[in-house]
Amino acid sequence: MTLTSFGESHGPAVGGVLEGMPAGVDIDLDKLQRFVDRRRTGQTVGSSARDEMDRVEVLSGIWQGKTLGTPIGFLVRNCDAHSADYEEIARCYRPNHADYTWEAKYGIHDPRGGGRASARETVSRVVAGGIAIQALERLGITIEAQIDFVGPRLGVADMEQALQEAVKEGDTLGGIVECVIKGVPVGLGEPLFGKLHAQLAAAMMSIPSVHGFEYGDGFDMATKRGSEVMDLFEKRTDGTLGTVTNHSGGIQGGISNGENITMRIAFKPVPTLMRELPAVDRNGNPVILQPQGRHDACVLPRALPIVEAMAALVILDNYLIKKTNVL
Amino acid sequence: MTLTSFGESHGPAVGGVLEGMPAGVDIDLDKLQRFVDRRRTGQTVGSSARDEMDRVEVLSGIWQGKTLGTPIGFLVRNCDAHSADYEEIARCYRPNHADYTWEAKYGIHDPRGGGRASARETVSRVVAGGIAIQALERLGITIEAQIDFVGPRLGVADMEQALQEAVKEGDTLGGIVECVIKGVPVGLGEPLFGKLHAQLAAAMMSIPSVHGFEYGDGFDMATKRGSEVMDLFEKRTDGTLGTVTNHSGGIQGGISNGENITMRIAFKPVPTLMRELPAVDRNGNPVILQPQGRHDACVLPRALPIVEAMAALVILDNYLIKKTNVL
Amino acid sequence: MTLTSFGESHGPAVGGVLEGMPAGVDIDLDKLQRFVDRRRTGQTVGSSARDEMDRVEVLSGIWQGKTLGTPIGFLVRNCDAHSADYEEIARCYRPNHADYTWEAKYGIHDPRGGGRASARETVSRVVAGGIAIQALERLGITIEAQIDFVGPRLGVADMEQALQEAVKEGDTLGGIVECVIKGVPVGLGEPLFGKLHAQLAAAMMSIPSVHGFEYGDGFDMATKRGSEVMDLFEKRTDGTLGTVTNHSGGIQGGISNGENITMRIAFKPVPTLMRELPAVDRNGNPVILQPQGRHDACVLPRALPIVEAMAALVILDNYLIKKTNVL
Amino acid sequence: MTLTSFGESHGPAVGGVLEGMPAGVDIDLDKLQRFVDRRRTGQTVGSSARDEMDRVEVLSGIWQGKTLGTPIGFLVRNCDAHSADYEEIARCYRPNHADYTWEAKYGIHDPRGGGRASARETVSRVVAGGIAIQALERLGITIEAQIDFVGPRLGVADMEQALQEAVKEGDTLGGIVECVIKGVPVGLGEPLFGKLHAQLAAAMMSIPSVHGFEYGDGFDMATKRGSEVMDLFEKRTDGTLGTVTNHSGGIQGGISNGENITMRIAFKPVPTLMRELPAVDRNGNPVILQPQGRHDACVLPRALPIVEAMAALVILDNYLIKKTNVL
Repeated sequence: MTLTSFGESHGPAVGGVLEGMPAGVDIDLDKLQRFVDRRRTGQTVGSSARDEMDRVEVLSGIWQGKTLGTPIGFLVRNCDAHSADYEEIARCYRPNHADYTWEAKYGIHDPRGGGRASARETVSRVVAGGIAIQALERLGITIEAQIDFVGPRLGVADMEQALQEAVKEGDTLGGIVECVIKGVPVGLGEPLFGKLHAQLAAAMMSIPSVHGFEYGDGFDMATKRGSEVMDLFEKRTDGTLGTVTNHSGGIQGGISNGENITMRIAFKPVPTLMRELPAVDRNGNPVILQPQGRHDACVLPRALPIVEAMAALVILDNYLIKKTNVL
Repeated sequence: MTLTSFGESHGPAVGGVLEGMPAGVDIDLDKLQRFVDRRRTGQTVGSSARDEMDRVEVLSGIWQGKTLGTPIGFLVRNCDAHSADYEEIARCYRPNHADYTWEAKYGIHDPRGGGRASARETVSRVVAGGIAIQALERLGITIEAQIDFVGPRLGVADMEQALQEAVKEGDTLGGIVECVIKGVPVGLGEPLFGKLHAQLAAAMMSIPSVHGFEYGDGFDMATKRGSEVMDLFEKRTDGTLGTVTNHSGGIQGGISNGENITMRIAFKPVPTLMRELPAVDRNGNPVILQPQGRHDACVLPRALPIVEAMAALVILDNYLIKKTNVL
Repeated sequence: MTLTSFGESHGPAVGGVLEGMPAGVDIDLDKLQRFVDRRRTGQTVGSSARDEMDRVEVLSGIWQGKTLGTPIGFLVRNCDAHSADYEEIARCYRPNHADYTWEAKYGIHDPRGGGRASARETVSRVVAGGIAIQALERLGITIEAQIDFVGPRLGVADMEQALQEAVKEGDTLGGIVECVIKGVPVGLGEPLFGKLHAQLAAAMMSIPSVHGFEYGDGFDMATKRGSEVMDLFEKRTDGTLGTVTNHSGGIQGGISNGENITMRIAFKPVPTLMRELPAVDRNGNPVILQPQGRHDACVLPRALPIVEAMAALVILDNYLIKKTNVL
Repeated sequence: MTLTSFGESHGPAVGGVLEGMPAGVDIDLDKLQRFVDRRRTGQTVGSSARDEMDRVEVLSGIWQGKTLGTPIGFLVRNCDAHSADYEEIARCYRPNHADYTWEAKYGIHDPRGGGRASARETVSRVVAGGIAIQALERLGITIEAQIDFVGPRLGVADMEQALQEAVKEGDTLGGIVECVIKGVPVGLGEPLFGKLHAQLAAAMMSIPSVHGFEYGDGFDMATKRGSEVMDLFEKRTDGTLGTVTNHSGGIQGGISNGENITMRIAFKPVPTLMRELPAVDRNGNPVILQPQGRHDACVLPRALPIVEAMAALVILDNYLIKKTNVL
């Protein structure tokens, strides 16, 4: 499966084409829209005031509620863009933004709302992943992401307050998302360069603001002895084989072992502060930018469906590839 | 650039084909051999006694000391394989090994020395990466990996002792490798799914035993406020633009910003202990395996050139892709 | 460069995403629309009466008249679809159509106007190729396709009459398109599996109704002796090297040699006749289908911009790849 | 499936890596060697006197007579190379050879025996294809290529004489190979850019010396009316659906329809004549090259297994892909 996405933040639309989706899968478009709505702004304190609506328009590949096996083209219009906010920014390089690096790469850069570098593009991922999730459900595979903590290791309960404080000071917070994939059959993933966790890492690290990825016991594994993290096998009452513990996070040698796949994803704090920002102009001279536009103070609430979507695309793709491993 | 690798641990050879290497690059084959030697066993306490020699045989693509632009085929013979050691293992699934998952995926599995699942395959990565490193040197780009700590957060000084203790108890250690890439020009990396750090993550997570990846301040970023991790721009004395700090690890929006690229990679402890190992047979019944074969107690010393090699392939590939961004 | 296309004939839209287009290239959208219009129906005797308009809507990747280097998303609405015409067809397999094979592949099939199997999808190719053509023009590369002959080897002069006769009898005609690419620099193409002519062949054979491809002297080459088709080199007055003849069609060893690239593409006659059609139902029982819908009697006039578009995508892609052949 | 090949004509070896081959397939290595032997020189009048032996050495991916699902690495040593023959050639561009175009592309070129541009590389294709053929046989799919005619449309009976005459005059002949694939199930191929015949065309056009490709009635289709080339369906005695005629060559809409897949491939005459050859030096000045080395007067006898091999790789790949079209 391949997702090809397109769209700048303040262009006419963002969208994509999902290729390789199997034929004959029931897709509930209302359910898909509800999944996409989870990513929308304005649902939590500290998230952007921009109301995008994000109505998904499917252009091909689904007919009479079923996938056709053909490419699924879709788009979401950008209806609420105030590009005027960005005129001053267009002449500057902001710290921790992609202005400077895009300019170096392409020699040209759409500054309106971050252009293609805006997290606006993630709506395409959520649409495609939402379709994949419906296919996975038929296979008994479920994916759930949740916030582990934000900022200074605060749980969800204290999070709201921490966010309000950060917002008040024009500041932003990062945090950790953890994700569990249940029901994955044994045998998915490629053993060498395409290890299942390498694919998941690439998928998660491609989400804006992500700075770290680990699966199973992750970085903690590094501090342990081999004898401390052994996932011993046991025969279960239903006759299947499983492991007593799951330090390995459901993957052995790059291939799923039937246990829950567990991973944690680290998000940096949003780089756009709602306070004066010391930037430079294109000649490298310092300028002070005034806060403008509308930005989330913390991306984590909106990131959950994005993480689930990306995980779904990886898992479904590997489910299909496994079919080709035998004649 | 693409590296296609092949080879089972106890088959005739491991090797690969490196495609997309630019033409006309000077390659010093002795230097390449020395780089590959860094990965060889037997150089440190606790590493496998197997002496593989690992003589690189280049079969194509390099002529009279220069790359031809054609695929570089190479192989390394497996000369010291004692497959008899693995007969008992062939009938069992060991914990934290790939026996069970490979069997599920392919329905067949070469048990000799781990077969394709053995870290033996990494020699192909080191050969290919060693070639890429020589190309990068011409461009002024250098890569250096070093051990941050092993096991219970021990520095290199105490590491030798910790390893000796672990070996004595038939146990193993994990650890963290950190890697710095210097001299990368501004503008490398793809902004969406192929973010430079996503490519590096996929490359590192594809190395056997890796359980976590972070770049820049990584997981620590998640606990900080946006105002704490700003990498403010400054004009340098040579007129170029740089950042005062480097929390971002040399990458903004998925594209290199000219600062050092920094990353940390978490390795789990080696799963093959040199003590009795509780496994199961193919019917799920418990068996106790006696320690056999020769295994490292800690992979980190050998992992350093592997990390450097994988990083080199990613950076050189993106260096070439950047050339296609303008007409 | 990659073109990802989507869209069924009678769905909401057809469209695509063009990735890998270099940044900073001037694109004249009016000129692009005019190029797409060349493919539209209703311009010649014997072509379909359906007036599709085919207004190109660019959704991303072009801003202020220049490419951004980001994916160029675009769509063309399907405004004039009469799906009712196809209800009977939905229950049958027509000869020389894709009904039966699609059903076998996907187990499901959109019968409205041929669905994804309709030549309607070629509008996406023409949009993408039209953009590539504007980039090539900047490089001094031009592409021109023309009809060599239709049906019983009739030149363009007699073609109109032959078409009228065929239409009168409810029949259809095939023909040959020849295409010349001028100004291609020496050195484009990959020497082994991706030979420039192999890429062109794949591109042309992917156009609906194409049954044959040849370049240079093509099939005639097979009947000649080596001494008869030698393209001897000569030094030209401007000091460059060229060949006196061009039997080789501008390509040697899979790589362009600077001469005109010449190729010929054979189109079969349109399979949908405007007369009674002996088909079978899904149980294999014979049925007679009455002529319905609107169909071209000969695709060649509309095929010209499609051929040019596909050629342009191949040439521009190889132009960019060549940049990566040296450091 | 992917075949990655490597090797220059007079380097140490040619070889490749075949990835994506399903696991558990019986491979008879003696049979594979016999298939590769069909391509070897010295079996027909007019073919090169060089005795290469071409002993296939499988390095991985096959164990105890079965595929493991892992990459199949293999090589064939180049044992009989007389590079001295090519010293003069190294300083010239020969007509209808790749000397000039390779130099333009890479700025460097291995002149020994044509280097990578030599048809010597096709041995890798034959090895990989020979493995695929054994898998296809298990599925009841067979592939047979034969010479349609050589030179001035001579059948096989007169061919030997025509070849002897051409050899006597130091000249060479081209010809047509036709290939039939039997037993292909309905539903293989991708409907748009990856049409089955487009994949076959790309595969065949990538074989050295091929100048044209057609399937079914091919170029003749262009001269016919639609009513003349209808392949009407019929229900066969075994209850399956088939077509009465097969103008379409076993493919409809890019997807196999269960009939025999038929195609014809046009080979140009060998460009290396055994007589004085008017070339140019690197400054474009005319030089006369004396005949040297050993070359075939007609490649067709040796091309047959190459055509079969390439066809096998395409068909098996599409067989595997079809498995992913439904959940």
